[in-house]
Amino acid sequence: MYRSHTCGELRIEQTGAQVTLAGWVQRTRKLGGMTFVDLRDRYGITQLAFDEAVNKDLSDRAQKLGREFVVQVVGTVAERSSKNAKIPTGDIEIVVSDLIILNAAETPPFTIEDNTDGGDDLRMKYRYLDLRRNAVRKNMELRNRLCFEARNYLIAQDFIETETPVLIRSSPEGARDFVVPSRMNPGEFYALPQSPQQFKQLLMVAGFDRYFQIVKCFRDEDLRADRQPEFTQIDCEMSFVEQDDVLELFEGMVKTVFKNIKGVEFDQPFPRMPYAEAMEFYGSDKPDIRFGMRFVDITKEVQTKDFVVFNSAEYVGAILAEGCAGYTRKELDGLTDFVKRPQIGAKGMVYVKYEADGTLKSSVDKFYTPDDLKAWADKLGAKPGDLILILSGDKPKTLKALGELRLEMGMRLGLRDKNVYAPLWVVDFPLLEWDEEAQRFSAMHHPFTSPKPEHVEWVKTQTNLKDVCANAYDIVINGVELGGGSIRIHDKDLQAAMFKCLGFTPEKAEYQFGFLMNAFKFGAPPHGGIAFGLDRFVSMLAGLDSIRDCIAFPKNNSGRDVMSDAPSIIDDEQLKELNLVVKLEK
Amino acid sequence: MYRSHTCGELRIEQTGAQVTLAGWVQRTRKLGGMTFVDLRDRYGITQLAFDEAVNKDLSDRAQKLGREFVVQVVGTVAERSSKNAKIPTGDIEIVVSDLIILNAAETPPFTIEDNTDGGDDLRMKYRYLDLRRNAVRKNMELRNRLCFEARNYLIAQDFIETETPVLIRSSPEGARDFVVPSRMNPGEFYALPQSPQQFKQLLMVAGFDRYFQIVKCFRDEDLRADRQPEFTQIDCEMSFVEQDDVLELFEGMVKTVFKNIKGVEFDQPFPRMPYAEAMEFYGSDKPDIRFGMRFVDITKEVQTKDFVVFNSAEYVGAILAEGCAGYTRKELDGLTDFVKRPQIGAKGMVYVKYEADGTLKSSVDKFYTPDDLKAWADKLGAKPGDLILILSGDKPKTLKALGELRLEMGMRLGLRDKNVYAPLWVVDFPLLEWDEEAQRFSAMHHPFTSPKPEHVEWVKTQTNLKDVCANAYDIVINGVELGGGSIRIHDKDLQAAMFKCLGFTPEKAEYQFGFLMNAFKFGAPPHGGIAFGLDRFVSMLAGLDSIRDCIAFPKNNSGRDVMSDAPSIIDDEQLKELNLVVKLEK
Repeated sequence: MYRSHTCGELRIEQTGAQVTLAGWVQRTRKLGGMTFVDLRDRYGITQLAFDEAVNKDLSDRAQKLGREFVVQVVGTVAERSSKNAKIPTGDIEIVVSDLIILNAAETPPFTIEDNTDGGDDLRMKYRYLDLRRNAVRKNMELRNRLCFEARNYLIAQDFIETETPVLIRSSPEGARDFVVPSRMNPGEFYALPQSPQQFKQLLMVAGFDRYFQIVKCFRDEDLRADRQPEFTQIDCEMSFVEQDDVLELFEGMVKTVFKNIKGVEFDQPFPRMPYAEAMEFYGSDKPDIRFGMRFVDITKEVQTKDFVVFNSAEYVGAILAEGCAGYTRKELDGLTDFVKRPQIGAKGMVYVKYEADGTLKSSVDKFYTPDDLKAWADKLGAKPGDLILILSGDKPKTLKALGELRLEMGMRLGLRDKNVYAPLWVVDFPLLEWDEEAQRFSAMHHPFTSPKPEHVEWVKTQTNLKDVCANAYDIVINGVELGGGSIRIHDKDLQAAMFKCLGFTPEKAEYQFGFLMNAFKFGAPPHGGIAFGLDRFVSMLAGLDSIRDCIAFPKNNSGRDVMSDAPSIIDDEQLKELNLVVKLEK
Repeated sequence: MYRSHTCGELRIEQTGAQVTLAGWVQRTRKLGGMTFVDLRDRYGITQLAFDEAVNKDLSDRAQKLGREFVVQVVGTVAERSSKNAKIPTGDIEIVVSDLIILNAAETPPFTIEDNTDGGDDLRMKYRYLDLRRNAVRKNMELRNRLCFEARNYLIAQDFIETETPVLIRSSPEGARDFVVPSRMNPGEFYALPQSPQQFKQLLMVAGFDRYFQIVKCFRDEDLRADRQPEFTQIDCEMSFVEQDDVLELFEGMVKTVFKNIKGVEFDQPFPRMPYAEAMEFYGSDKPDIRFGMRFVDITKEVQTKDFVVFNSAEYVGAILAEGCAGYTRKELDGLTDFVKRPQIGAKGMVYVKYEADGTLKSSVDKFYTPDDLKAWADKLGAKPGDLILILSGDKPKTLKALGELRLEMGMRLGLRDKNVYAPLWVVDFPLLEWDEEAQRFSAMHHPFTSPKPEHVEWVKTQTNLKDVCANAYDIVINGVELGGGSIRIHDKDLQAAMFKCLGFTPEKAEYQFGFLMNAFKFGAPPHGGIAFGLDRFVSMLAGLDSIRDCIAFPKNNSGRDVMSDAPSIIDDEQLKELNLVVKLEK
């Protein structure tokens, strides 16, 4: 071993001890005849002291150490004359008697400090240096800790961690599957799993009763800021359960994680909100309930005069921004611009100021009397000093836009504190959603999700399909969907009916899902499960804006690893062995 | 929840309790007016009792239950009249008051019993039913337990579990890489990792200090009985360590695993054997040291007469089979046939019987006197009643064949008890081996393995290459290599010299490993690690002959999953999106 202690370990009690340390040179400074070096490793920083008067040669060598040199030192622990209360080793320093350079270092392309001078691209190219920074490494430690806590919780609850295959059957519907040519089976391909869904259901058929796996999944799609081609899930499944059982058990897991990692205790059960309520009052299936500001439907109230914008609208909704009556023209214009951005898509915004003096002013004073405005304000429970913001139009689009406006106002009003956590179960999702483009229904969750018992008949007879409710649920914290799941179909006839609803011919269903449906013939238990997005879960706990920062070696928006420059072209020889020809379009 | 208790939970203390159970029907039997059903789940079996006299209808329905039906019952716990001491629930039964069939089952294609009537192929096709069998599921539980124990040990030792990418850079040397075409980067491919070697070394450069990961790795090669295209490793790396540090820490892990899982305590340090000794005395780099029977070199002793077979041999080696002088002609012929099998390749076998009466008889009596034979017997330490087996020829081949013969004799003599564990470190491997076909050296371990300090100069100057010893080690238990590792090169110049020894041009080394060599410029610490083959580790603990039995969904020798029928052909549409054309050879 190159060291007797780590750089985060020594304290005043060890004064006088002979120690050996190894680590990286964080910085070197000279103070008169003394040279001080901060030696860093994962565990901390320890100050090394070199006295010119005692050993000139050693001191000279210390002065020449460059940033990020890897060194080993032997020395004696001594009390510092000027202590540093900011670090746990700040009471001591090492009076060095021997110094060995284990590896020299070129000057790194950016500083290895919490606030680095390196831009994103540079830090990604030299990710191994970026990972040396405390801030980044701490995210990885948190990730490790989260897995540890989740695993311990699940194993204590009799879950068996079981690995499912990474090289699986490719499905004709799997347009976003990564595929892997098989050398041993010419012309054939495996796919990489988008989730272990079918395998975990087979494990339930196999009687495993409680399964989990922290597992990589893959999706070959255009990457948004918060997506990676490979991502990690805490994937879970249980037998002989109903929705309440799943929610209760995994609520316990989330509570344990928050308590053990963040010291945050949730003493109440997590609220449960039907999907319809979430959409109607928050315009989102993942509402941030750290704050209220629920939508108020004022369609009836406003369609009383000659204002054609409101009169022609399917829906007119309002939110209350408390204490914001003082907003300037510029601020209100800013909000209007915000909702008119293409990704939000509102045509405009109407406001009503309930001034501190009790008068009401609006951008539609031409059409409505102060009494009209007062009636709206009353419906919203507004007080003098408040501001009312109103959007109108096609209902689904307006709800969505109002949802964005609500989040924006929540942010401006400081109601979305990163240190406050508001968990929520969203339940009662629709089973199916109409795909306008394909002119057929698609599964909102996935094709194995069970309808509510009272809607099973509708699925079997293909009636009221758009009203069928699913036994599906999402867990949402602070407006982020951390995970989702459902009770699955375990009856082969219901599963066949479901495939029919989704437009599969029996042959196609058989070709694609035959082995699962076959398994259902031999005694499938009722079962259900959930999958958490590990990357998002870590990001939330770490207060990060992007999941990229909690992944050791992430890929960029083009799916490239800029550090190792992957993907890359491969040998013709290798292509030949795989019976493949690359044919690029001109 | 569909149950109040599991099927393995109820005891005599619960007599009189009203309970709800759910599970699979293992078997049904009628005894007079009573019908008994064994209800099974992962946790055990509970007997259900139906009395015709009490409820005729219920009893009739119970009789009609088929094997593997999934049912739910409500009933009362009662003491059994005839107890079954073989199962933990054997003192009680459930007097059933209500029975609900949750799912019917077709008759399974084989019986779900410890000794099933299903052949290998059938069980693989219906793996989800095979996994219902206790024997198979217990292997998966053991796998889960091994991971749990290894993880806890490593996390307690400050290791951080860190995920490395699955979609990595393809390397021109990676002939056995699986590749993954990238849709977003036309004509380019990722590779799946054969190991996370370079990434874990980068994590050391990043200062992570102690890394581990239980991780899937991939190799596209022809599959022998004990290989799978995807396999799992417990992959570990540490900084600021020397070989002894790594061996000590992971010896601790193995000891902990054996103690906590098997109740086996190793109170001595594991022996360490140089590679040269293992080859010279066991003919294998993974000797089974549950028994002795070390080779004795009798080349000099036998090259004294006119026996041309021995006289022309580079090496003549013998093993002592104690108490086997009574072997019949047929048994000896059988051994001769064994060593002459093509995969062993000896040309013949010579034996010497040291009869109980003190006389010596051999298959080469024509050439040697009893005194000659006595001299050999003395060199082997033979006693009357023992048998000496001798092979001769080219040294490396003869050592290997003698190694196989030794294992065979150990088996026949009952010296290879599955319940005895003999761990061993094999150390001091050669760094390089000569590749006759390619006419160049290749890395015995991998190109990142460090030579012993005293041989660094040889690598840098490319002298004595075949004698260079590596800082590499394998852990072997009972003749099975459970894991291996090495101290790595952390100096960029030594790494460049190593690539040169392996016949890389600087350009090719740069193209393939540039990002790692670049990382070494910025302060790489001394580091080393090890990787355990999880599948083999579980197999050893479970006493299995094949790793396939400890994998939930294994592939067959052609790399196929016969259950889901993967790999398979994919859509032309999808190929086009990937810019690929399949071109099969006629």
